[in-house]
Amino acid sequence: MSGAQAPDALRSLVESRIRDVQDFPTPGILFKDIGPLLADPEAFAAIVADGARRHTGRVDFVAGIEARGFIFGAGLAHAMGVGFIPVRKAGKLPGPTVEVSYDLEYGQARIAVQEGAVAPGSRIVVVDDVLATGGTAAAACALLELVGAEIVGLDVVMELAALGGRSALVGREVYSLTVA
Amino acid sequence: MSGAQAPDALRSLVESRIRDVQDFPTPGILFKDIGPLLADPEAFAAIVADGARRHTGRVDFVAGIEARGFIFGAGLAHAMGVGFIPVRKAGKLPGPTVEVSYDLEYGQARIAVQEGAVAPGSRIVVVDDVLATGGTAAAACALLELVGAEIVGLDVVMELAALGGRSALVGREVYSLTVA
Repeated sequence: MSGAQAPDALRSLVESRIRDVQDFPTPGILFKDIGPLLADPEAFAAIVADGARRHTGRVDFVAGIEARGFIFGAGLAHAMGVGFIPVRKAGKLPGPTVEVSYDLEYGQARIAVQEGAVAPGSRIVVVDDVLATGGTAAAACALLELVGAEIVGLDVVMELAALGGRSALVGREVYSLTVA
Repeated sequence: MSGAQAPDALRSLVESRIRDVQDFPTPGILFKDIGPLLADPEAFAAIVADGARRHTGRVDFVAGIEARGFIFGAGLAHAMGVGFIPVRKAGKLPGPTVEVSYDLEYGQARIAVQEGAVAPGSRIVVVDDVLATGGTAAAACALLELVGAEIVGLDVVMELAALGGRSALVGREVYSLTVA
């Protein structure tokens, strides 16, 4: 439940580049579209710089959650000069993998990382675009701990507060640029 | 069928960070695993720098093909200070989208970009990890042209020459760091 505040100017910039889309992916859902944000190099660079400012020197890897977490996570890893670890849907990664299942509103999902992807004790920040119920983020953190990593925190661009994702991440450092 | 050669040192570095995985995703397939490459910040930075060297000033956007193209594409877009356009599997992008179908070995696939994502005449380099049959890459280029973009070229980390992907991309500039 911890986490620093995003700078006001960055939050305003990010919010101005997120577009509401009604009824996606299903009727009644107001979807937060990050398309305009990705298309704006200044906004993307500001998000990456903010992450680099907070994490440089304290992490060994950035882990990105498939698929939009790959975009922000790869930018951040590159900016800090650290390695990138993809957390993928089960079945997508080759070689021996370690997997965990977690509950969705209806049914279950399963995510994976490669066995041996990180040396034990590696410090990792997990990156995704949106924190919703927190199910995927919590599973990703648990999975990376299972392979020996130390989770420094979770960075997201946007937090959907009404879905209560932070309650799935109690005791973890969660940082969101904007709360909707 | 055009395209410059990758520098020898970079090609060697990349090749040393790609791991062969037998029988993935199905028996008999030798899968080229880029996991070690992503985990190595020097290799990732060298790939991004090579792309930036070739494309800075000649593109307005980088388009990344879901999902591994997001990783290399986002790094490149960030390094050059241009916007990033995700090319996604149909159904994943909100708002009005433009889609194309293309043939797979068995069945069809459908990819999408957001309508209005790029201004007409925008110059785009398309990025993916692997060029295999070229079906997805060719469809991504056609799709982006459909929304008004000018395709500057396709950049991939690895080309599987036996699958003949370049024949699906005749007349386009294709650049691969390594050919397997």
